Amino acid sequence: MAVTGSPELLIVMSAHATPEEVEHVVDRLAEAGADAHVTPGREATVIGAIGERDALAALPLEGYPGVEQVLPILKPYKLVSRELSPDPTVIEVRGRRIGDDAFGLVAGPCTVEYREQTLETARAVAQAGSTMLRGGAFKPRTSPYTFSGLGEEALTILVEAREETGLPIVTELMDPRHVEAVLEHADVIQIGARNMQNFTLLSEVGRADKPVLLKRGPAASIEELLMAAEYVVKEGNARVILCERGITTFERATRYTLDISAIPVLKQETHLPVIVDPSHAAGRRELVLPLARAAVAAGADGIIVEVHPRPEEALCDGPQQIPVADFPDFADEIRTLAHLMGRQIG
Amino acid sequence: MAVTGSPELLIVMSAHATPEEVEHVVDRLAEAGADAHVTPGREATVIGAIGERDALAALPLEGYPGVEQVLPILKPYKLVSRELSPDPTVIEVRGRRIGDDAFGLVAGPCTVEYREQTLETARAVAQAGSTMLRGGAFKPRTSPYTFSGLGEEALTILVEAREETGLPIVTELMDPRHVEAVLEHADVIQIGARNMQNFTLLSEVGRADKPVLLKRGPAASIEELLMAAEYVVKEGNARVILCERGITTFERATRYTLDISAIPVLKQETHLPVIVDPSHAAGRRELVLPLARAAVAAGADGIIVEVHPRPEEALCDGPQQIPVADFPDFADEIRTLAHLMGRQIG
Amino acid sequence: MAVTGSPELLIVMSAHATPEEVEHVVDRLAEAGADAHVTPGREATVIGAIGERDALAALPLEGYPGVEQVLPILKPYKLVSRELSPDPTVIEVRGRRIGDDAFGLVAGPCTVEYREQTLETARAVAQAGSTMLRGGAFKPRTSPYTFSGLGEEALTILVEAREETGLPIVTELMDPRHVEAVLEHADVIQIGARNMQNFTLLSEVGRADKPVLLKRGPAASIEELLMAAEYVVKEGNARVILCERGITTFERATRYTLDISAIPVLKQETHLPVIVDPSHAAGRRELVLPLARAAVAAGADGIIVEVHPRPEEALCDGPQQIPVADFPDFADEIRTLAHLMGRQIG
Amino acid sequence: MAVTGSPELLIVMSAHATPEEVEHVVDRLAEAGADAHVTPGREATVIGAIGERDALAALPLEGYPGVEQVLPILKPYKLVSRELSPDPTVIEVRGRRIGDDAFGLVAGPCTVEYREQTLETARAVAQAGSTMLRGGAFKPRTSPYTFSGLGEEALTILVEAREETGLPIVTELMDPRHVEAVLEHADVIQIGARNMQNFTLLSEVGRADKPVLLKRGPAASIEELLMAAEYVVKEGNARVILCERGITTFERATRYTLDISAIPVLKQETHLPVIVDPSHAAGRRELVLPLARAAVAAGADGIIVEVHPRPEEALCDGPQQIPVADFPDFADEIRTLAHLMGRQIG
Repeated sequence: MAVTGSPELLIVMSAHATPEEVEHVVDRLAEAGADAHVTPGREATVIGAIGERDALAALPLEGYPGVEQVLPILKPYKLVSRELSPDPTVIEVRGRRIGDDAFGLVAGPCTVEYREQTLETARAVAQAGSTMLRGGAFKPRTSPYTFSGLGEEALTILVEAREETGLPIVTELMDPRHVEAVLEHADVIQIGARNMQNFTLLSEVGRADKPVLLKRGPAASIEELLMAAEYVVKEGNARVILCERGITTFERATRYTLDISAIPVLKQETHLPVIVDPSHAAGRRELVLPLARAAVAAGADGIIVEVHPRPEEALCDGPQQIPVADFPDFADEIRTLAHLMGRQIG
Repeated sequence: MAVTGSPELLIVMSAHATPEEVEHVVDRLAEAGADAHVTPGREATVIGAIGERDALAALPLEGYPGVEQVLPILKPYKLVSRELSPDPTVIEVRGRRIGDDAFGLVAGPCTVEYREQTLETARAVAQAGSTMLRGGAFKPRTSPYTFSGLGEEALTILVEAREETGLPIVTELMDPRHVEAVLEHADVIQIGARNMQNFTLLSEVGRADKPVLLKRGPAASIEELLMAAEYVVKEGNARVILCERGITTFERATRYTLDISAIPVLKQETHLPVIVDPSHAAGRRELVLPLARAAVAAGADGIIVEVHPRPEEALCDGPQQIPVADFPDFADEIRTLAHLMGRQIG
Repeated sequence: MAVTGSPELLIVMSAHATPEEVEHVVDRLAEAGADAHVTPGREATVIGAIGERDALAALPLEGYPGVEQVLPILKPYKLVSRELSPDPTVIEVRGRRIGDDAFGLVAGPCTVEYREQTLETARAVAQAGSTMLRGGAFKPRTSPYTFSGLGEEALTILVEAREETGLPIVTELMDPRHVEAVLEHADVIQIGARNMQNFTLLSEVGRADKPVLLKRGPAASIEELLMAAEYVVKEGNARVILCERGITTFERATRYTLDISAIPVLKQETHLPVIVDPSHAAGRRELVLPLARAAVAAGADGIIVEVHPRPEEALCDGPQQIPVADFPDFADEIRTLAHLMGRQIG
Repeated sequence: MAVTGSPELLIVMSAHATPEEVEHVVDRLAEAGADAHVTPGREATVIGAIGERDALAALPLEGYPGVEQVLPILKPYKLVSRELSPDPTVIEVRGRRIGDDAFGLVAGPCTVEYREQTLETARAVAQAGSTMLRGGAFKPRTSPYTFSGLGEEALTILVEAREETGLPIVTELMDPRHVEAVLEHADVIQIGARNMQNFTLLSEVGRADKPVLLKRGPAASIEELLMAAEYVVKEGNARVILCERGITTFERATRYTLDISAIPVLKQETHLPVIVDPSHAAGRRELVLPLARAAVAAGADGIIVEVHPRPEEALCDGPQQIPVADFPDFADEIRTLAHLMGRQIG
């Protein structure tokens, strides 16, 4: 096919590259169906490569003799990019919406501990006007000596909570062997931060027909988050919600550093909705409201927070869960600020 | 003197510490006038030290044989701590206020480049209701090949801008030998991020009778920022404004990662006002408004932003400066959100 | 049972904690079978908790009213700790050894690309005296548009390479559904950096009877690496090799920052062997030898490096693979330095 | 003048840039005496700029309308670069050498505390064959409540130690107003990590005729370290020794993360000698030897370590100082390894 357009890549040759090395790169590009624009120079020759993204990605350019660096000009993702689809994606589940003018308030316990705890929380978050109910059935835990979730029993409790409140349920998938059980019960499948680059899971949920809530890994760049989303969308599932939940930095006053800038950056780069998890970022209850407010003001499409009837007895992440009794005020504060930003809780 | 109260420090002895090593620690504590509470155990003995902070700080406890770790229970700062002074400090300069219900909108060019650029900007930010005018006279630059400010000439231009607009002026002090010139002209002395631990400068401004705007270093923890403020206050100058401006992380989509959580954490820990610099954190103009909004919503006492008549010609940080023409709308957005948070621009 | 010994945890109560809140904590500890040593004070009361690790880990102490912080005194891992087993663990596979005086030189292609590439590399690394052959069959890739490995076909090629050279083979397991295939062919199962906290996989390999090579995640602390190893050992598989391969930092001159200090720290903390992957840390061939040397000198029990007949044609990580032709010299350098450190290549 | 050679910069225009915006960039480049090579494209036009480094650095290219990113092709430093001067720089002071085949062993107390402590240490490190004596007179301290050095009195003690042992002395300069006192007494002026970007100090020592030991800031990239060195060299002082001493990361098992990869990277980029400070990186004595060994093996030109007669009584950094009694063995280990690397202690 005819190749036109701008360079995908700029290949900077080293100052000591020979003409043969330059020619070798140009020949390899030609074999891959790409055009090469050579800008020769005394110190460093630069080659612009114009061609098909996939063909260029397959070339081991950085390994060629004489190549100093390869600078990508186009982004490594395309299906999730704002250029492809300027209109914002809206995720709709059981009549609830996240994206565009619909702000998502997702709330619920860190973990489903027992039936009454989950139902009491579900009623409270539904009553306060939430968009969806979150709750962990399978929990990743850093230490092997801590509680790791009720598993399928938790899914049954969540379904009961949905039947009573009408709220769609969001729960995490950790193991590809649980795909069927989770898909059967959940409305939105969460991929946790530690699994953001578990490509096995990403491919599985890419073939599912349920929306995916994809959390950013604590050491993943914004670009890597978008590439992880691209994995899911490439398999056919375009309903992905991105979630910023804090990155690993040197600061220890908070569990993670909430990367608030990721929100406007992601809104610029992608058409997918972007929500924020202030509970995990902060690790402390008294920071959840200010961080949730900051997320709304920065332009997030929603927040996901942890709520518990008695956080002091929670089996998991007690210090960061909002007491059920405080949740109505919390929801009101968020609602008011979302209005000011032109959003309705969806 | 009689020592009462809670332990300042917990000293955890190693599992292999001998009784003599435990006794040695207890003896050293006693010599320093501190009490020791020993909790012996089969694996690790823990010693609680109760005494005067300064006396304990002078003991090289971690170097004593048998000591595994020393855990500070009390904070390493006191004059700046919220415990000492529960009421928020308000900084007042020429009738303008920052702190408590007064939100500070500090704006102006990155650098004073020439008279007209500065006056035009000053008029615009005054017109839009700003609290203070910022402008660099002496500029720290990473590369020795870039513009480093007009120096004392810039101070004269800033004074002219103040005379015309009435806005107090904020400018950076980099060299202790410029103290007199800067103190003579400026209303608020800025200590830049790279100088946050320049203890020479901190002591100098601690003896000045002008408020200090202290920026967080890009690799400094929140605790280190508070200790830097303690340096200033300890010398006698209690008028310190803290400024979060982004920390160094692995993320490269933004110049720094704005640590939005630092705002509620600092508001909890200290009585000093806390403002945010979204321009330097982001490095890109289109992120300045969302980050500024996030700062207001997170509870900041003010923001400091860069404004330029023609950012595309700016000698410094062009991409992050707000055009003068866009500033009125920017100020209106901030004002509206500050109102919602119960603040007036001071 | 009778509880003796040192405190597991120190619980620091807030300055405003009431006597009832202190009592509440003590009561909860008692219910969990733990003893409480209370050191009261005017500002902060400290409670030392002495009891069974698992029972204490299950208590949501940080959520109790009045609790300011919980300081663990004992390490959150035990089976992998040096205290439990002062003698170094030696991993022996098909007569090859890693640990104690046996230094492991693990080498091979990043990915099994085709039969001849793998066999040629295997012969060269065997000839140069390597301990094991590495090679990827299933590859995690950040972008969905790049080569992700030959899968089971690659396992067959690796087995052929083992038959010819006698070298045990190390290959990565990414998906719990591949456990049987990988266990059937591989001698050592690698858990990749991105899966270090894939607890599903950790439990699976914990039940396998093959040694596990566990790579540190790029954002995982040394303590988290040890807890991940504890997951594996707790399931019954004590043959774990730890691997430092670089962490995510702000520095961009290298792909990751090799945490060389992790080696002496890990050797102090655990009896498990610790090896280093300089290829992935550096991302550039010319850094592999200096970093490999540094690893030996810092006390590592082995290194794992990537080797390719023609790195410039490699489908994966070309720039960091050592050419087959250069490998004998590389191996000689490592051997000489290992001798100086009192080690033999195992 | 005629401009030839390779592009200094590649300017990538946004996909929506107009022809006028491209022309505007080309015109600005022409005014600055630079040539522009335009590679037009459907999606993104790329402009290669060929011209004088200083002229291009002065252009606010990133602020021009339509510019998406500016990619520097040449390095932002030149005087310190390996290209400029392929032969390694050797720093010679009072007959002692660091660089090329001369390995520098710099040792001494963290801080000069009193005369006998310093003299005893100086004798021991001289006896063990060290290259230079280090010792702090003015100490930067994170907390205002800790010991900050004896100041000029310490300089006198160091001079006495030099007279007795013949070792050149290295001491830190923190305040430009101390330049004369420090220059009068010291042989090598240290710029501490916190002052790496104190451009006031860099310029001062750039005009001195004493060698400078420049420590990397804990959040400074390798490129920023080289630019800081460029500041010094640009003022006329070409005798700069670079020092890696650990960077700030999320890992807390060590005080800083020693960036061992910085050594081979710096050796590739610059002709200046590169030494390593394992004491400050580790913060713990038992890690100093393994890290020092790693530094030698990675190709460092020297190490700088802290030694104290009785570290448990040290007023500063006790836990990381090597006892005088252990130093001879330490020096022997380093000497043996340096020999293997083809170096003599200078």
